[in-house]
Amino acid sequence: MKTHQITAPSNSMEAVLKHKIDLKTKPLGALGELEKIALQIGLIQNTTSPVLNNPHLLIFAADHGITKEGVSAYPQEVTYQMVLNFLNGGAAINIFCKQNNIAIKIIDAGVNGTFDHQHSTIIDAKIRMGTTNFLYAPAMTITEADECLQKGSDIVNQTFKNGCNIIGFGEMGIGNTTAASAIMSIICKLPVENCVGRGTGLNDNELPKKIETIKNAIVTNKLTATPMETLATFGGFEIAQMCGAMLQAAENKMVILIDGFIATAAFLIANSIHPLVKEYAIFCHQSNEQGHANMLHYLNVKPLLSLNMRLGEGTGVAIAYPIIEAAVAFLNDMASFESAGVSTKEIKELA
Amino acid sequence: MKTHQITAPSNSMEAVLKHKIDLKTKPLGALGELEKIALQIGLIQNTTSPVLNNPHLLIFAADHGITKEGVSAYPQEVTYQMVLNFLNGGAAINIFCKQNNIAIKIIDAGVNGTFDHQHSTIIDAKIRMGTTNFLYAPAMTITEADECLQKGSDIVNQTFKNGCNIIGFGEMGIGNTTAASAIMSIICKLPVENCVGRGTGLNDNELPKKIETIKNAIVTNKLTATPMETLATFGGFEIAQMCGAMLQAAENKMVILIDGFIATAAFLIANSIHPLVKEYAIFCHQSNEQGHANMLHYLNVKPLLSLNMRLGEGTGVAIAYPIIEAAVAFLNDMASFESAGVSTKEIKELA
Repeated sequence: MKTHQITAPSNSMEAVLKHKIDLKTKPLGALGELEKIALQIGLIQNTTSPVLNNPHLLIFAADHGITKEGVSAYPQEVTYQMVLNFLNGGAAINIFCKQNNIAIKIIDAGVNGTFDHQHSTIIDAKIRMGTTNFLYAPAMTITEADECLQKGSDIVNQTFKNGCNIIGFGEMGIGNTTAASAIMSIICKLPVENCVGRGTGLNDNELPKKIETIKNAIVTNKLTATPMETLATFGGFEIAQMCGAMLQAAENKMVILIDGFIATAAFLIANSIHPLVKEYAIFCHQSNEQGHANMLHYLNVKPLLSLNMRLGEGTGVAIAYPIIEAAVAFLNDMASFESAGVSTKEIKELA
Repeated sequence: MKTHQITAPSNSMEAVLKHKIDLKTKPLGALGELEKIALQIGLIQNTTSPVLNNPHLLIFAADHGITKEGVSAYPQEVTYQMVLNFLNGGAAINIFCKQNNIAIKIIDAGVNGTFDHQHSTIIDAKIRMGTTNFLYAPAMTITEADECLQKGSDIVNQTFKNGCNIIGFGEMGIGNTTAASAIMSIICKLPVENCVGRGTGLNDNELPKKIETIKNAIVTNKLTATPMETLATFGGFEIAQMCGAMLQAAENKMVILIDGFIATAAFLIANSIHPLVKEYAIFCHQSNEQGHANMLHYLNVKPLLSLNMRLGEGTGVAIAYPIIEAAVAFLNDMASFESAGVSTKEIKELA
C-alpha cells in the first residue's frame, strides 16, 4: 500500500509570527481570517516571510458506473466533453485560473474516452474507462484504489519538483456527487439524507431516487470500515487520486487548497488516514451543494468563501486564491507601527 | 443644496444577459453570487459584454471632535499618522490595492494636520481640522455638509473623466465608528446598543461609555429627521464626502463598491436621499464590527465576503475586487454549451 510520512508543521516560529502580525499598522486582529491564513502559511513554511511559488490547480477527471442509475441531471459523456472544454480553455476554471495566474493541469484519472495525451496540459493517469456501478459491486478494487493514491502522489511530486509550494485540487466527473455523498455518509456517520444534494440540478422527482440508490449501495456492499475500503467501494478514480495527491502535498509541506463537495469528500478519506493533513489545508469555499456544510462541520473548519457556487472544477480554489495572496502580502509588505511612526493604543492608555 | 439626478439602470438587456449566463458550460445557477454580479454590472453598463475600466479606491480621511469623549482605543493623531502611512504605501489598503491593480487616491476631507498637497495621491478637500464634538453641538453645519456632498461629487467626476467606471470608497478617521453608529441608530431606527461595537478595540469598561455618549448626543441635538440633518449632526467630513461621492457615482452609472461599517453608514444617508443608488452598489464585506450585520439587514443586501475583518480603509473592497473581476470574466470569456460541444441536460431528458 502507498503510505505517506506526514509530520505537523513546526511551531517554532509561532510566537514571532504572531508578534509580526500584531505589530502591523492595524488594530489587533483587524484583518480577521487573513491573519489566520498568514499564520498558518508561515508555520507551514517555517518562516516569517512566506512566499507562494508557482501555484497549481490539478483537475482530476473520471467517470462513474453509478450514472447508469440516473443519479445525475447530465449524461455521462459530459465528463469527456468538459475535459475537452478544459483543454480548450473555455470552462469557468480556465477563466478564473488565468485571471489569478494559477497553472492548470488536467488529469485523466479514468474518463470514458481517449484524449490526445500529447496535449501539454493533460496527464494520463487513467485506471480504466470509469468505475464499476457501485450499486452492485465496489466501484474499484483495493489494488486500484492504491494505484490511485500512488498516481496522485506522483503527480504532486512532479509539480513540487517544478517549484510549486501551493496546490489546489478540482474535479470533473458526472455522477461524482453521488460517490461523494456515499463516502460522506460512511465517514461522518450521518444519514444519507443529510449527505445528498441536487448535484448538477436534479429535480424533486429525481432526488429521492439518488438517495435510495446510495442507501441500497451501502447495504449491498456490506462495508467493514477502513477508509481505503470506503474509498474503493464508492470511488471514483478522481476522488481517490485527489486523496493521494492531498496526502503527498502534506508530506511535502505544501499549502493545500480544498474546493467544494467532491474535493472535501476526498479530503475526508485523506484526513481519516492521516489527520495531520488538515494542518496544511485551507478550505476555500462552502458549496451550495447540500451536505457540504455538514462535511465542513464534521471537520471543524471554516471556509473562506460562501458564494453559493456549486460547480466543482476547483472554482472555489481559484476564486479564493487572491485572498490567500493578500494574507501573505500583508505579512510581508505592510508597515509596522514603529516603521510607519503610528501611535499605538498604549499611548492613549498611558496619557 | 447639491442634488443628483439618479436613474435606474436600463433593464432592456436583462433577458439577453440571463440567457447568455445560462448558456455557459455549467449547470444553471452554479456560479451563485458571481452570476448575480455579472447580471448587475451588465445592466448598469447596458451591455452583455461589460468591462471594468481603471478601478479606483478613494479613501476619505477626517478627524472627529467626539474623540475628546474617549470613544476610541487610539488617540486622534492616528488619523494623520495613518494618512502618512497611506501616502508612503505601508497600510493594508496599499498592499491590497497594489496586488489587485486598483488605483488609490487619499482625500483629506478634514484631518487635523497639514499635508504636502503636492503629493500626487492626496486630494485637498479639507473642510476644517476635524468636526465639532457632537456631544454638545452638531458636528458640522448644514452648509458644510452640503459642501461635503459637492466635494465628494467633484472628486468622483474627475475620476470618471479619467475613464474609471468602477469605484470603491474607504475611510480613515479615529472616532468614526461612533459617528457611524449614531447615524445608523437614527436612520435604521434601532436602539443605540444594536448599533455600537468595539471599533478599533474598546474593552468592556470603555464600551458602555461609547454607548452612553451616543445616547446623550442624540438627546442633546434634538433631531428633526432629514437625512442631511442626521449627516450634519454626527458627521464626519469623510462620511459626508463619501455620501456625495456615492450619489455622484450612481448618477454617472458607475459600479459602486461599498466597504464596511463606516462606508455603509455613508451609504445609509445616500440611500435615504436617493434609494436608486442601491442599484449601482455591490456590498463587498460584512465587517466584524457589531452593527454592520444589522445595517446590511436594514438595506436588505448580502455582502460578498465575511472574513471577520474590521479595519476600514476600503480593505473589504480591495479584497473582494478579484471576485467582481471573475464575474465579468466568466460572462465575457467562458464557452457556451454550443461553442464547446457539451451536451445539455435536455439530452438526458430526451433520451
